[in-house]
Amino acid sequence: MATIAGTKSIRGLSIAQLKQLPGNNRSNVPVHGMLHAVRDMGNFAFLILRKSDGLVQCVYNKTGTEEEKELLREESAVLITADVVEEPRAVNGIELRVKELEQLSAPKKELPFCVSKRGLNIALENEISVRPAALRNQRKRSVFKLQEGLAQAFRQHLSQKGFTEIFTPKIVSAGAEGGANIFQMNYFGKKAYLAQSPQFYKQMLIPVYERVFEIAPVFRAEKHDTPRHLNEYISVDFEMGFIDSFADIMETEAGMLRFAFAHLKQHYAQYLEALQVTLPEIGEIPRIRFTEAKERVAERYNHKIRDPYDLEPEEERLIGRLALEEYGSEFVFVTHYPVKKRPFYAMDDPEDPRYTLSFDLLFRGLEVTTGGQRIHDYDAQVEKMRSKGLDPEDFETYLMLHLYGCPPHGGLGMGLERLLQKLLEESNIRATSMFPRDTTRLNP
Amino acid sequence: MATIAGTKSIRGLSIAQLKQLPGNNRSNVPVHGMLHAVRDMGNFAFLILRKSDGLVQCVYNKTGTEEEKELLREESAVLITADVVEEPRAVNGIELRVKELEQLSAPKKELPFCVSKRGLNIALENEISVRPAALRNQRKRSVFKLQEGLAQAFRQHLSQKGFTEIFTPKIVSAGAEGGANIFQMNYFGKKAYLAQSPQFYKQMLIPVYERVFEIAPVFRAEKHDTPRHLNEYISVDFEMGFIDSFADIMETEAGMLRFAFAHLKQHYAQYLEALQVTLPEIGEIPRIRFTEAKERVAERYNHKIRDPYDLEPEEERLIGRLALEEYGSEFVFVTHYPVKKRPFYAMDDPEDPRYTLSFDLLFRGLEVTTGGQRIHDYDAQVEKMRSKGLDPEDFETYLMLHLYGCPPHGGLGMGLERLLQKLLEESNIRATSMFPRDTTRLNP
Repeated sequence: MATIAGTKSIRGLSIAQLKQLPGNNRSNVPVHGMLHAVRDMGNFAFLILRKSDGLVQCVYNKTGTEEEKELLREESAVLITADVVEEPRAVNGIELRVKELEQLSAPKKELPFCVSKRGLNIALENEISVRPAALRNQRKRSVFKLQEGLAQAFRQHLSQKGFTEIFTPKIVSAGAEGGANIFQMNYFGKKAYLAQSPQFYKQMLIPVYERVFEIAPVFRAEKHDTPRHLNEYISVDFEMGFIDSFADIMETEAGMLRFAFAHLKQHYAQYLEALQVTLPEIGEIPRIRFTEAKERVAERYNHKIRDPYDLEPEEERLIGRLALEEYGSEFVFVTHYPVKKRPFYAMDDPEDPRYTLSFDLLFRGLEVTTGGQRIHDYDAQVEKMRSKGLDPEDFETYLMLHLYGCPPHGGLGMGLERLLQKLLEESNIRATSMFPRDTTRLNP
Repeated sequence: MATIAGTKSIRGLSIAQLKQLPGNNRSNVPVHGMLHAVRDMGNFAFLILRKSDGLVQCVYNKTGTEEEKELLREESAVLITADVVEEPRAVNGIELRVKELEQLSAPKKELPFCVSKRGLNIALENEISVRPAALRNQRKRSVFKLQEGLAQAFRQHLSQKGFTEIFTPKIVSAGAEGGANIFQMNYFGKKAYLAQSPQFYKQMLIPVYERVFEIAPVFRAEKHDTPRHLNEYISVDFEMGFIDSFADIMETEAGMLRFAFAHLKQHYAQYLEALQVTLPEIGEIPRIRFTEAKERVAERYNHKIRDPYDLEPEEERLIGRLALEEYGSEFVFVTHYPVKKRPFYAMDDPEDPRYTLSFDLLFRGLEVTTGGQRIHDYDAQVEKMRSKGLDPEDFETYLMLHLYGCPPHGGLGMGLERLLQKLLEESNIRATSMFPRDTTRLNP
């Protein structure tokens, strides 16, 4: 009987495995990879292998035949047998002396650009069209290793803090955020929508798990084409019960971000280095009320306030600047947004009901998070729905939460691509979304 | 200046924290939770608190006032101050002696069922309609803790094995699996679809990261209403390069499942116990060719073969039975599916091109995974597209993979809800999807 034991690994070793090989076991080692670059040095060639965990340099003694030329085509997949030697000048500190080389597959055509150069020198719009190929470049590839690192760190931190990971549906019967920016679809003859956020679900699960999180796609049918908007993005959402005040949510976010940056520093150093990222320090993050922030930057930077109920991108930028100049912080919490601009589930400030117990987190002058305390009392929620012109009967399932009891709670949603955009100091969010969706782009 | 330090935690302690309190620090401890059950014992009451990490028993000395009755309503959110004592007879081995009790919020209405009973005694269809409330029950809640545990284990294992986690778009310009079971939508005036799988993306990333995985929702517009189909589910997808043969994919899956069950045993014991789950042993998993499996169960169990190109649910069940009876395994790989029933990217078996280098994994008689080796050569892929009546020009972006070079590779997709369904021996997949989507259900 043929069986699968679940114990076999792929033959070729990773760079991490190669570096850990004991001195007496460094001969005739199998290594696979893509031929990232071939540098002809006359009677030998440097081969740079691209592997799951980085690049490694190989020395190959040439014979000069036509056959060999075919064998050494860049972007071939190869399996080599090599001796591993220490080589401090090489990337990763090791060099492979090739003894045998087997070509596993060859490209049909050469890449239209050189992936082994530091930069690709392609305009962003063009790069996105060939993203799958462009990502073979080490810098481009590093961007999404950092995305992975952030997501993993958030999950790890929140799990440690007692949050339960949830998976909620993306096809929904009603939008959580309201407004026109919702994608509609036909669902077996019924009208359905793509979830703008997991808001209702994460709240409904508060009496069940007390703290929940989800890292998953959300969909916004926003018609503007800006450097900061995507029509599909990864939202890092959490919600927590038994808060004393909405400051608890900000405390949790600050702790989570601090953990994530430390995680990148520890486990993603090679990618931070490839992109020359300066990780921000998270010390005490200033918190400023919405109206105060607006007024202070208007005065300080001679900015004219046009919309009293929301922050314009320019104002976010200036508030970020204020936080840096005054408090030495690249992060700033803006709190107490007007009721008018916050959804129906936002809790009003009992001390001034024109405002809500809510916040945005700005990072380097860009909003990366929106959060706040939610209404937990049934009557209060029904009343607020009515005051916003909504019919509580349309929210029967959601209101089960308030009807059957739930603790004081709140949470937030953070845009993963935006956080990464500001971390890498990219001017366009499309640089940090692997396959971005905007009003004109559906492909790749 | 008001600041957020990111160091404050919620006041009330978790059960894990309570159990770890040193002996001299067990007085006047703050604990929050939902009043899961109140059992009146005359001049005292047992209060069962529901917390993020389980239930804990409290003893409350009654005064008998009307006020107190209001205070002790089930499904209130409370903050108590208590002394912690050892109590071997209590769940979790500790008991809290309540000294103060503060009600943080109260329900508007009583739940329509008693959540503190072992079972809820509601038909599945009705339960789903009130799922958010039903999940307050410990058994129901445990189901999705195990879902979390599986997802976390898969990620942890694959990361350790050098897989990169990816996030791919769910709004796409073309379906990966073809066929009619794809949801269509209007995307700013263009026709778009909801991703049936991340197939194209994960393959395109093989030359970049060598091994990738994604755990995310996928969407299938299947019209059948069966106990094993959902129209939206969580797909555990991975793809790996540099395989020697498609057996490497099965090896990786078997290793991943073994790791996941060990992870549940170690970290999710209370939830396994609540649901009385028997974890399967993964020893040597038998692999049987599609045609052989079909013929063997037809003969052995007197079953008539109707569709020679696919497995009927009954045949899956019988193959599962065969594997258990003959090989003592609750898992069985069925390999070499007919070309006819596999998508255009499946690699044909060079030894018999009527079949593909593909497999399904059956668990307790149900298909939980589909996988296989993919075509990596450009010309071969273009030819196979044509033989399936497809136009290679429609797949220009995808074909960049083959055009610019990629190693031999393959992967799989596993349905998380199905795996959990069989693990819990549930007869309907809606029991293991928190908010299931089927042809009639969009809510909650």
